[in-house]
Amino acid sequence: MSNLGIPSRESNYADWYNELVLKADLADHSAVRGCMVIKPHGYALWENMQRALDDMFKATGHVNAYFPLLIPKSFFEREAEHVAGFAKECAVVTHHRLIEKPDGKGLMVDPNAKLEEELIIRPTSETVIWNSYTKWIQSYRDLPILINQWANVVRWELRTRLFLRTAEFLWQEGHTAHATYDEAETEALTILDVYRRFAEDWMAVPVLTGLKSENEKFAGADHTYCIEALTQDVRAIQAGTSHHLGQNFAKAFGTQFQSAEGKLEYVYATSWGVSTRLIGALVMAHSDDKGLVCPPKLAPIQVVIVPMGRDEAARALTHPVADRIAQELIDLGIRVKVDKREKESPGFKYNYWEMRGVPVRIELGPRELESGQAVLARRDTGEKATVGLERVAEFARDLQATIQQSLRDRALAFREANTHRVDTWEEFAALFEGEGGGGFVVAHWDGTSETEEEISKRTKATIRAIPLKPLIPSDGEPGVCVLTGKPSKQRVVFAKAY
Amino acid sequence: MSNLGIPSRESNYADWYNELVLKADLADHSAVRGCMVIKPHGYALWENMQRALDDMFKATGHVNAYFPLLIPKSFFEREAEHVAGFAKECAVVTHHRLIEKPDGKGLMVDPNAKLEEELIIRPTSETVIWNSYTKWIQSYRDLPILINQWANVVRWELRTRLFLRTAEFLWQEGHTAHATYDEAETEALTILDVYRRFAEDWMAVPVLTGLKSENEKFAGADHTYCIEALTQDVRAIQAGTSHHLGQNFAKAFGTQFQSAEGKLEYVYATSWGVSTRLIGALVMAHSDDKGLVCPPKLAPIQVVIVPMGRDEAARALTHPVADRIAQELIDLGIRVKVDKREKESPGFKYNYWEMRGVPVRIELGPRELESGQAVLARRDTGEKATVGLERVAEFARDLQATIQQSLRDRALAFREANTHRVDTWEEFAALFEGEGGGGFVVAHWDGTSETEEEISKRTKATIRAIPLKPLIPSDGEPGVCVLTGKPSKQRVVFAKAY
Repeated sequence: MSNLGIPSRESNYADWYNELVLKADLADHSAVRGCMVIKPHGYALWENMQRALDDMFKATGHVNAYFPLLIPKSFFEREAEHVAGFAKECAVVTHHRLIEKPDGKGLMVDPNAKLEEELIIRPTSETVIWNSYTKWIQSYRDLPILINQWANVVRWELRTRLFLRTAEFLWQEGHTAHATYDEAETEALTILDVYRRFAEDWMAVPVLTGLKSENEKFAGADHTYCIEALTQDVRAIQAGTSHHLGQNFAKAFGTQFQSAEGKLEYVYATSWGVSTRLIGALVMAHSDDKGLVCPPKLAPIQVVIVPMGRDEAARALTHPVADRIAQELIDLGIRVKVDKREKESPGFKYNYWEMRGVPVRIELGPRELESGQAVLARRDTGEKATVGLERVAEFARDLQATIQQSLRDRALAFREANTHRVDTWEEFAALFEGEGGGGFVVAHWDGTSETEEEISKRTKATIRAIPLKPLIPSDGEPGVCVLTGKPSKQRVVFAKAY
Repeated sequence: MSNLGIPSRESNYADWYNELVLKADLADHSAVRGCMVIKPHGYALWENMQRALDDMFKATGHVNAYFPLLIPKSFFEREAEHVAGFAKECAVVTHHRLIEKPDGKGLMVDPNAKLEEELIIRPTSETVIWNSYTKWIQSYRDLPILINQWANVVRWELRTRLFLRTAEFLWQEGHTAHATYDEAETEALTILDVYRRFAEDWMAVPVLTGLKSENEKFAGADHTYCIEALTQDVRAIQAGTSHHLGQNFAKAFGTQFQSAEGKLEYVYATSWGVSTRLIGALVMAHSDDKGLVCPPKLAPIQVVIVPMGRDEAARALTHPVADRIAQELIDLGIRVKVDKREKESPGFKYNYWEMRGVPVRIELGPRELESGQAVLARRDTGEKATVGLERVAEFARDLQATIQQSLRDRALAFREANTHRVDTWEEFAALFEGEGGGGFVVAHWDGTSETEEEISKRTKATIRAIPLKPLIPSDGEPGVCVLTGKPSKQRVVFAKAY
């Protein structure tokens, strides 16, 4: 364990992640099983993600709405696959009142306040939303509906990890309704591209885009697209999914419309979502043994200014300069914090803000100030530069874009170094041996669920994506399955997944 | 009922409100008892409210965070008043799994998946938040904590009305922790002023600010401040509350801190909230028999442009002009919509956008265009103006501020016309006779809960606010109680409330 109190990635990656999330003030455990508290620093990161995504959704024609948290049990009974996937491990509301215990010591459920029909806290909202859409859609002129919802959902997960898998999490879920299969297909792919661009341009996380296999698709979907990122322990992390639901939910809820030609037809649907899991993916992509490394475009604080000063006289020199530079940065549109705490040493403050992932630090020491200079430090590389005070704000602003690009380049290089093309079972199995990751393994597969399951049983690796376009041209050429030797149309991407 | 399909306020105010909310596309009923769907137009209004409030909270030093939806039952047992106020009518989660029924027909609760301790869907989050604060607060240097949360809550209301009272609603809840009573008091009053400014400056709704009586204060508070608005049927509507919680929750959860002097002390707290109920208050303040009247600063669409054209030739003339003006408006920062639907008549479109509360309509007719002009119509007054095309965008922009101010002036004049000062029980009782409202009645009260209850029993009116400052100087002078004749320090405000 380092002196900052988090283990190194090398020594214990899982503990490193967990301690980092706690120490960087991103989240905390709560008294409620599997539920986390998202602390202000973590929530500010989520707000920045929300703002960027919301703008992208609106730019592609979507609007927000809000549907009920509670779903009647019977709604889940309508779509068979969906039941199997979601309705079983869930939070069930059975009563609507507590009363005092007969002995006066505490509360108990009032047996007289049992609900006629149990309500489920939404694990996802297809059913309750399609119940409304069925009322709203009569004619082709009511289509398309392009609605998104920002909401909390609950899934009764047995093994939870902060951000990656929690019983309650925050997400957005888009639910769209279309007159034709092709329109829904275009929608699902439009959103997949929004997710890819968000991951790459905002999170600085390169992602694979592709189709899920039948085994991995959403319960109730015709087919599922996904974006998949690679963590530093070379596992895949699913960062977003976009589903073409076909007419499955329309048929389950009787959602029909009169077409322009006067025929009664079932509506086509998509749904798509990303969640607070993105924060886990972001942490795993860039952070190091000193703590969080945050891409500047999403960082809650982009620049921290640390004015030194052991005594009043020194602080009288450095604090006004800190305030002036902070104002210059604000005017440049930069999110800035001045750390004037008097009882903490500069070294303590450096560690403190490094743990919290602030991309650029400006150190204002009395000696440097006398020569009209300040020291800037980059969080990602640790590099330092001495810059004239008149240029400090602009320099710190320009560093934001440099760091953003650099993080993305580094993550892409890491992914490429950990993407393997193999053609024999021996090579394949060797990569996934042991408890570690194995990277993205690009191999031929015969296209059957049985083979995928057998591979998963032997290696714990699953198909993360069937690429829409070959990653390199030869991936798109036919070959033979790495396990069965049967014919394969193209290579697919295997990995062990979070 | 008017030809637009909503009753007039005169004929049936309650039905007018309900039908307006539905027809203006603000909300819809759902299949879940007491829960509403907030439709895109209503949600866009809520997003504008959120954005403005969130900016005001951040400008006063607050940050956002997120705490769990589910609260262990035992947490409610700790603060006695709070239990009585909130824990009883609530949604209780008792199980975490559904299984198939033995006959294979549908789902049932798995009796083997009973929770050890029941979980309550938060009706408000004091308990779960103070459970975390107790972990986070050790020393005076950890204070203050100034956290806000945007969240959904559930209260098992028996009689629900869209936006005004629903089983699930959206809100923000601030929860702050302070070292001293005075600091907490300052916080509670700071937020009260944020709420007042938001109501007046954004919603164009004048509000009374004041203290709640003991009967009306928050369950668990030391004292409660509120803002109260007057509806068009002359009832009070509580639009926001700010509570000084004293040390009640700190004592219930054992939240102590080491003071600068090294003493162990209990923390002081505040909590405060506004909800989607604000949308109901906004509707009731300004709207008319044609539908929603929305203050421009919060309107999802501020200007609608209706280009006429019965045939291709006419549309080829009006549509490009509409697009050009729309772009000019966007460049001026105005939210604009061009209604190019071909199958709907101009009259239909006028009614359609009037129902949805768009403050300004621009009509582009071929004849006016030929003379280089357009017609602008104000939603609030119906006034029309003919304006040269080169000035249309700026004119429509400037009208926004005019309408905003005009709505506020009108609401203030209405409130003043419906505020009555009475000194005898006969006058008092007469104002509240029958099923109608009665306005704000400013009268002397002897300060006892018994008298308040007796007044409420006889008239259905309650004390809405004990003004912090006299509304007019003489309100602050002593007098005798309107019911008992006992001494009174100042006048208070009575009304029938939503």
